[in-house]
Amino acid sequence: MTTENPLLLALDLAGTFAFALNGALTAVRVARLDIVGIVTLGMITALGGGIIRDVLIDYLPPATFSDWRYLAVAAAGSLIAFGFGHRMHRLSGLIVVFDAAGLSLFAVTGASKALDMGLGPAQAVILGAITGVGGGTLRDVLLQRIPTVLRSELYAIPALVAATITVLTIRFGVYGIPAAVGAAVACFAIRMVGVRYGLNAPRPPGQTDDEPER
Amino acid sequence: MTTENPLLLALDLAGTFAFALNGALTAVRVARLDIVGIVTLGMITALGGGIIRDVLIDYLPPATFSDWRYLAVAAAGSLIAFGFGHRMHRLSGLIVVFDAAGLSLFAVTGASKALDMGLGPAQAVILGAITGVGGGTLRDVLLQRIPTVLRSELYAIPALVAATITVLTIRFGVYGIPAAVGAAVACFAIRMVGVRYGLNAPRPPGQTDDEPER
Amino acid sequence: MTTENPLLLALDLAGTFAFALNGALTAVRVARLDIVGIVTLGMITALGGGIIRDVLIDYLPPATFSDWRYLAVAAAGSLIAFGFGHRMHRLSGLIVVFDAAGLSLFAVTGASKALDMGLGPAQAVILGAITGVGGGTLRDVLLQRIPTVLRSELYAIPALVAATITVLTIRFGVYGIPAAVGAAVACFAIRMVGVRYGLNAPRPPGQTDDEPER
Repeated sequence: MTTENPLLLALDLAGTFAFALNGALTAVRVARLDIVGIVTLGMITALGGGIIRDVLIDYLPPATFSDWRYLAVAAAGSLIAFGFGHRMHRLSGLIVVFDAAGLSLFAVTGASKALDMGLGPAQAVILGAITGVGGGTLRDVLLQRIPTVLRSELYAIPALVAATITVLTIRFGVYGIPAAVGAAVACFAIRMVGVRYGLNAPRPPGQTDDEPER
Repeated sequence: MTTENPLLLALDLAGTFAFALNGALTAVRVARLDIVGIVTLGMITALGGGIIRDVLIDYLPPATFSDWRYLAVAAAGSLIAFGFGHRMHRLSGLIVVFDAAGLSLFAVTGASKALDMGLGPAQAVILGAITGVGGGTLRDVLLQRIPTVLRSELYAIPALVAATITVLTIRFGVYGIPAAVGAAVACFAIRMVGVRYGLNAPRPPGQTDDEPER
Repeated sequence: MTTENPLLLALDLAGTFAFALNGALTAVRVARLDIVGIVTLGMITALGGGIIRDVLIDYLPPATFSDWRYLAVAAAGSLIAFGFGHRMHRLSGLIVVFDAAGLSLFAVTGASKALDMGLGPAQAVILGAITGVGGGTLRDVLLQRIPTVLRSELYAIPALVAATITVLTIRFGVYGIPAAVGAAVACFAIRMVGVRYGLNAPRPPGQTDDEPER
């Protein structure tokens, strides 16, 4: 068990906070839920990716349940979003930014923790991406939306990039704060460029862009 | 492993039965499924919360799979609902009552089992609530509905109350049949009052009640 | 740990390939996703059932993550569907066939692996059925559809039949390639007959067939 890895913990808590804000603001904006619904959705979005990761790598009970700091940070982010969400202008922009931040940080921590637990490099990359997209996917399923990871504008790809950078830098012994932050920033930048310009990965041959989507 | 704890087992089986009736009656009423769909939904609703609990506390394979009584009770409840659902008047009222009963019983057993497995008190409270709301959330996701735990009328709060009473009475050494039943009854009563009077937890500041919901 | 069981592995990889084609073709046809969405849905459909199985029987990390062949086969099937899906005529027919093939193969491997891990026969049958229907259920939840296992035309029943044949032949010592293939073919045949003739399991007493469904 890797009980203490301060860099992993710090990035993980930052990602938890970002996803808590994202999930709770989404609940405020999209679904007009009450405080319990808002905090519940914020906490599921914040903790879902890490719980899926910990179940898959057999790190049970999940860090969330053995370390109160995750619960506290997720609850704090959700309550802040509940209290201040109505004053925030450009709410949809903030929702996208917090989502991209959580995605980036969790892709790094997921890949790093998977390597710590002895998984191979390809598995660690996939697991990093799953950690990044997991919380948002639960959020979208609960709100009856097709998950962002399927609709994209570059969502899974930046997560895979960040996880790959993480795995490579760990393998080559140059991992540390700069590498971890660099990997997260790369993911965040790709994601935000994708959102800004409405970029999508290639469509199947024979489909044109002006076909109706659903 | 806590292989035998008769009080826990009895409450768990009662909750399983209540949720099996609830899930299968919901399938009869809402979705007009055939017998396999009805029994499947009844069993997922009945067993889902406990399976999520057992995965998270690393009690694997889940009790459901190591103890045939859970499967038998879940199947029996589902088949009873299949056979008699069409004769039951006030079906929607019964559905709500069985859901509240399952929620209450599973919140108690989830918190109790989490403490048994060595989790801290705050974690045990959260895990009790997850156990209570888990099966119904799977049911709603499969039927394409926003889960009750997000829409509420007091759903997560009574589960947290029951789990908190359970954890406190265990910690102070006064847990037993009266405390367990009392915790479940408190949850059930709060939930039913919430349903009866359409109560919801507070909305975010700046939202008024007459805004359109979705 | 049963690290090597060539028959189990071959059937599991064949089922993974069939479900990858099914999930990715469904994404091409129903949701008009881009390449990342298509491959993601293909891989979730292909790997979801086995991951759920491995979580429930505590075989963690799941075979998917400890054995690269699953990832490779799932990715290959998804990319083939991406590249050739637009040329395939009768796409909806192929989607149903690949789904039935994956269902049949995974019901056999799920039941076999559960027995290997020491579960009882009834639990192994249920787990085989869960393995068979798991990936398709995740696919349907992510695409906002009521899962096939609830809507049916005989979907859970053939999976239970294949799992039961598997468990019985293993218990009576006559399991091997003929028994495994026979169990899968039986499941496949029942499923395809159900689809062809629009068969459903019995409805609850008092419901008539001409009632509106949803």
